[in-house]
Parts: sequence; structure tokens; C-alpha cells
Amino acid sequence: MVVKLYGPTCASSKRALVCLIEKEVEFEVVPVDVSKGEHKDPEFLKLQPFGVVPVIQDGDYTLYESRAIMRYYAEKYKSQGTELLGKIIEERGIVEQWVEVEANNFHPWAYKLAIHVLFSSIIGITPDPKIIEESEANLSKVLDIYEERLSKSKYLGGDFFSLADISPLPFIDYIVNNMGREYLIKDRKNVSAWWDAISNRPSWKKVLELYKVPI
Amino acid sequence: MVVKLYGPTCASSKRALVCLIEKEVEFEVVPVDVSKGEHKDPEFLKLQPFGVVPVIQDGDYTLYESRAIMRYYAEKYKSQGTELLGKIIEERGIVEQWVEVEANNFHPWAYKLAIHVLFSSIIGITPDPKIIEESEANLSKVLDIYEERLSKSKYLGGDFFSLADISPLPFIDYIVNNMGREYLIKDRKNVSAWWDAISNRPSWKKVLELYKVPI
Repeated sequence: MVVKLYGPTCASSKRALVCLIEKEVEFEVVPVDVSKGEHKDPEFLKLQPFGVVPVIQDGDYTLYESRAIMRYYAEKYKSQGTELLGKIIEERGIVEQWVEVEANNFHPWAYKLAIHVLFSSIIGITPDPKIIEESEANLSKVLDIYEERLSKSKYLGGDFFSLADISPLPFIDYIVNNMGREYLIKDRKNVSAWWDAISNRPSWKKVLELYKVPI
Repeated sequence: MVVKLYGPTCASSKRALVCLIEKEVEFEVVPVDVSKGEHKDPEFLKLQPFGVVPVIQDGDYTLYESRAIMRYYAEKYKSQGTELLGKIIEERGIVEQWVEVEANNFHPWAYKLAIHVLFSSIIGITPDPKIIEESEANLSKVLDIYEERLSKSKYLGGDFFSLADISPLPFIDYIVNNMGREYLIKDRKNVSAWWDAISNRPSWKKVLELYKVPI
């Protein structure tokens, strides 16, 4: 059974796509054009009541929320593709900790920055310089903590690539390649080396190649 | 080895405490007085660089982020106490989905509402009526989706109590018992019945009894 992924727009879809590719799961993408508001169509809302992508359908199993989708496939195909959760539960604990750090500390500021720097014209808002400044300052503090963490381990979750590294990948790509703020990454030695490692993975290159969309 | 939990202030500490009690894990609380700024002490920042509670120390294993702590103990003591992740990975997937919904959809608005209605004097900000109104309106929309979900299953993650129910518990307690907004819960039949079920669990009653703190 081929997994259907509703997306591939938005950073969160890319998070799920990288995971599926790393786990060597066969999938097909069902396009949901958020620029046309298709994520708010009544039929889509039946699948995802909050009206956001991604959603997966795997036979009669439906699941949404990108980080939940990643966990499900990382566990379902534990012994297939890249091990993304760590070998023992103590490793998984640390992986989960850094997935949470991404969701609660990194993402809110990266998202605000992207909304005001990158997507303001698409969503029709006026960029607010104060929000941009505040978001960048807070993002810098988070990246200082990433820098310290990455002075002790090669990846965020430990010395192995994991869900903790996939989680922030799509938004760091926006920061480096679309928002003219590559200095946030390049000026931090360990963060920069880590970014080189994770952004050069074939899974990420494939996502960028196949699903290069404006959002 | 008794688990040390740095807290017990803040909703997020209570999330971890309920999980430890449900899993029958022996623990002791190391008090961190956030009203005195102890969560920003250099010694504490060595444990948790973002300066927030909770943190657990379990022998030489240190872990932070309440939802990561819950996952770790739910998995470590799989066959002890209440099963909080579901029996099969498809059940866990749905549990994780609703934990993510809490973190990404429920929490941001509940947090903003609590900051402006409940904690403004403690943290020294002027409550903003516009933020209060916006937060309550958005929270209502999320609770409408909870209502629909809870018309189909007894708990958020399925027909069993799970991490998905523990996650929103502390903030719903604020809403019902501290913020004068019990109508947000009581006016929704299924949400109200669910709230009665989860707030009457001995684990939650114990947390309220032992760790009743102003924050």
C-alpha cells in the first residue's frame, strides 16, 4: 500500500517527506494548493479539521501533525532505512527533547520571521520591522544554545542523525536560502557544520528537487 | 534510584508530575521558585539552558521538556501503572497527533489567555483586552474541534486515557478553576464529560493537593 501524503507545500510537509524518504517508505503526494486555499476546502477539513498540511493516509489509517507522522514512521519501520529515534529509550528521550525544543523555542520565532520577511506579500500582510527584529534576536538566542549543544554532539539528538535534526531543517533552509539571513547559521561554527551535514543529505536534496514550491 | 523533578511550579511541571504518578514512578521534587527567578540561576541554566521547568534527573540521565519527559516514562515503564501510549503503534500515532494538537493549537492560545488574565500582575504586564478576546475566540475554535473528536471517542487519543489527555490538563484547570472561564468547557457536552473524567483522576487530584502553587 502506497502512503498518500497531502502536501507538499509548507515547511511541515517537507518535515514529513524527509522522514518518509529516510525510512525508504513508498509514497505519493496528493497536491493541496494552499495558495488557492485548498487546505480550507470542506473535503480537506474532514481529514484535517484545523485546515493545515500535511496529512497522511496509509490504507484506512489517517494521521496528521508532521512531528506525529515522523514519529509514527520512524517507529513503524524501525529496522528499515535510517534509524531516526536512537537505539535505546534514553537516546530517544534526548531526540524527543530536541524535537520539543524545535517546536517550542525555535519554530515560533523562525515562523514569525518567515511570515514577515518571506511570506508577507503572499498572505497579504505588511511586514512589521519590530516583529522582525524581535524574532531574529530570539532566534539568535536559540541558535546560541544549539551552538553549545553541537559543540558536544555531532547532531542535536546525539551523534546520529535523527528526528531532532529533521524538525528544524525546512525553516533553516528558508533562513539560509530564502531570507538572506545565512549569517545566523554561518557565523556559528558548530551550527554551520551541522547545517552542512544535514542539508547535504540525499533525502533533503530530493525534497528540494521534487517539491520546490514558493511556500 | 528516586527520580528528581525540578519544579513543581508551572503547568508544564504538572504535566510531567501527572505522568510520573500514573506510571507509579517514585520521585522527589526539587523546588525551583520561578517567582524568585531561580529558573534563571546559572546553576539551573546548566541543567536547562532555556531556563524553564521541569527538568528530571534520573541517576545520571537528565531530560527536559515536559512532553519529552512524559514520552520517556510512558515508554520506560510500559508495563507499569497506566498505559499512556496505546497498545499498538497506530494507537500511539493518534495519541501523538493529539499531543501535537495540544502543543500547536491549544497551548499557544491558552497560554496567552493565562498570561493576560491570570499572571499579568505576577509578571508585571498590563492585560491587553484585544489579546484576551482573540485568545478566547481561537481557543473556542480549538475546543469545537475537541468537542467533535470527543463525540467519537471517550478520550482525545482514543477510548483510553493517554498522554493526549494529560497534555492539556493543567491549562484547562486554569481555565475552569482560576480564570472564570469554565463555560468554555461546560458549554460543550463532550468536552465537559471528558474534563470530568480526566480532572477526577487520582493522579491529578494528588498533583493539585501536593503542589498547589500560584503559578
